[in-house]
Amino acid sequence: MSNDFTIVNEGDLMDLGIKAFCKLGLNATDAKDVVRILVTADLFGLSTHGMSRIESYGERLAIGGINAHPNIQIEHVAPAMVRIDGDNGVGPLVGMRSLEAAMQVAGEFGIGIALTRGSNHFGPISPYSLIAAENGFASIIGSNATTTIAPWGGSDARLGNSPLGFGVPNPDGRPFLLDMAMSVVARAKIRNALKRGEQIPSTWGTDAQGVPTTDPKAALNGFLLPIGGHKGYGLALLVDLFAGLLSNAAYLTHVKSWQDAPDQPQNLGHFFILIDTKKLGSTQWLGDRMNDFAQILLDSPPANSENPVIVPGMIELNKLEEQRNSGIRLSNETLELLKQHAPAG
Amino acid sequence: MSNDFTIVNEGDLMDLGIKAFCKLGLNATDAKDVVRILVTADLFGLSTHGMSRIESYGERLAIGGINAHPNIQIEHVAPAMVRIDGDNGVGPLVGMRSLEAAMQVAGEFGIGIALTRGSNHFGPISPYSLIAAENGFASIIGSNATTTIAPWGGSDARLGNSPLGFGVPNPDGRPFLLDMAMSVVARAKIRNALKRGEQIPSTWGTDAQGVPTTDPKAALNGFLLPIGGHKGYGLALLVDLFAGLLSNAAYLTHVKSWQDAPDQPQNLGHFFILIDTKKLGSTQWLGDRMNDFAQILLDSPPANSENPVIVPGMIELNKLEEQRNSGIRLSNETLELLKQHAPAG
Repeated sequence: MSNDFTIVNEGDLMDLGIKAFCKLGLNATDAKDVVRILVTADLFGLSTHGMSRIESYGERLAIGGINAHPNIQIEHVAPAMVRIDGDNGVGPLVGMRSLEAAMQVAGEFGIGIALTRGSNHFGPISPYSLIAAENGFASIIGSNATTTIAPWGGSDARLGNSPLGFGVPNPDGRPFLLDMAMSVVARAKIRNALKRGEQIPSTWGTDAQGVPTTDPKAALNGFLLPIGGHKGYGLALLVDLFAGLLSNAAYLTHVKSWQDAPDQPQNLGHFFILIDTKKLGSTQWLGDRMNDFAQILLDSPPANSENPVIVPGMIELNKLEEQRNSGIRLSNETLELLKQHAPAG
Repeated sequence: MSNDFTIVNEGDLMDLGIKAFCKLGLNATDAKDVVRILVTADLFGLSTHGMSRIESYGERLAIGGINAHPNIQIEHVAPAMVRIDGDNGVGPLVGMRSLEAAMQVAGEFGIGIALTRGSNHFGPISPYSLIAAENGFASIIGSNATTTIAPWGGSDARLGNSPLGFGVPNPDGRPFLLDMAMSVVARAKIRNALKRGEQIPSTWGTDAQGVPTTDPKAALNGFLLPIGGHKGYGLALLVDLFAGLLSNAAYLTHVKSWQDAPDQPQNLGHFFILIDTKKLGSTQWLGDRMNDFAQILLDSPPANSENPVIVPGMIELNKLEEQRNSGIRLSNETLELLKQHAPAG
């Protein structure tokens, strides 16, 4: 069991990742941006959205399903609004170019938005929110996704489990980061219940007919349920309206599945709303308020003394600090894939 | 039982409401804006956030807890960013001035934000989203609120059940509107379970020690639980960070309770992010996409044939259409209050 992962230094993982993506056809600058997002995901402990993605990204790059040399177009449709065509590039590359464009206009006008089409899976949101926060920007970022969720009360997959993320910088401490999908749980949690022979709460998923179920097997053949029922359904739709519909990308069932059609452009959409907090007050004003805000929450006596209150982003930022110091826990499977892609030497 | 409400014509309710707020000290222009928001809430069927609020607003205006003649300050801190001091005016008045300011900058720069402090309860969010949508703006709007929710895992009230709303216009049909608080259910639903002698799901609320409970009585003495557990907790915090912390308003436990201290300014905060969809394409482009988007969802076969799939805002917009035509169902209690405030004639 001690053999299923290896501790890898952040810098070494960056180098290995960059080599692998260069070998897959990206130039060194683009590869570095992609790897920066994915390694940050691994640092946060979000390994399902980290360098393990070299598998699907690599497969799609190899068969031309993703464009290794995209001509990313940035169009200023209004002073603080940019529309971006990712030209079917690797998601985190298109994401980084979009984030940079949004930060640039937000820095000039106080708030800015990038609406992005022609993209692919862009990793988790929290690495983008972290970069934004490190540059003094609060952020609201979202992406649509392949359809896996039924409309509320419906019985077939017509919307994605679209992620939505927020960040607020703290010049005198840690930012607040929130990165969430709209399902109550991830599919993996239902698979684990099945393995253990346990029932699941009826709020987690429906069977294939759209009826809520406590049977994990039925739920795996059905659909994930959104948080708060119609509330999470509404939130997922609004993310798709901003990320997909307004950006002129695909939306809902128009989004191609990277699993069923890996050779096809997905035309995924994202949105990046950035707010320049430096326009609102001094770094001391913001830092004092952010630290006071966190302290009020952390001071609440815990209902269960073993689980003290936490604030959004705390788990990920603890993990990042720990793994920056002691190395990243990387699965050997991912390490092998990286080595296969990266030329030795 | 037929006597506990009266059907009132929209125009008559507007007139009566304006008279009542003028008698409470507002000038006619300000009263009209306040009443427009509250009557729209009643049209949507959101009577708890409609003209019934004349009770608490009126009480606080009468004792000087709300300022009837606020000097609302609009400061342009960056080209597309305004900071607003509501000077403790009536919430929907401060809300309307903020919305107008945000629409003005968004119309010029593509996106705009108003960050508002010194405000009070501003009604539901959907009336603002509707006005924005009617003017071609997509919107993300939020407000903080008096603390009624414990931090996730905590055991005392330190955050509000902060509402968050979204809207996307449809030039060829109905907009999408989403207006949600972060609790799984409203407190009224727990009160109803208690009346019927029923248990509640353990996801609705905790007892006074912060432990999830199925006993409605214990839950009414405890705290509402947020949707998706830590996800809804995170969302509620992010709304407060944008609406309260960044706007320089009060936040978390610094927000004064309008119930416990009706004579004190609450210093509530809001944020209004507006996106000008007219910069993104023609009205036909947007209308076609919005109608296609809705149709994809509505075409999903319902899991239960008695409950067809709906889209966010549909219930409220149906109700608005119906009540515009046939009159608004207003509780006699609210009607009496309005008549008490409004001079006869």
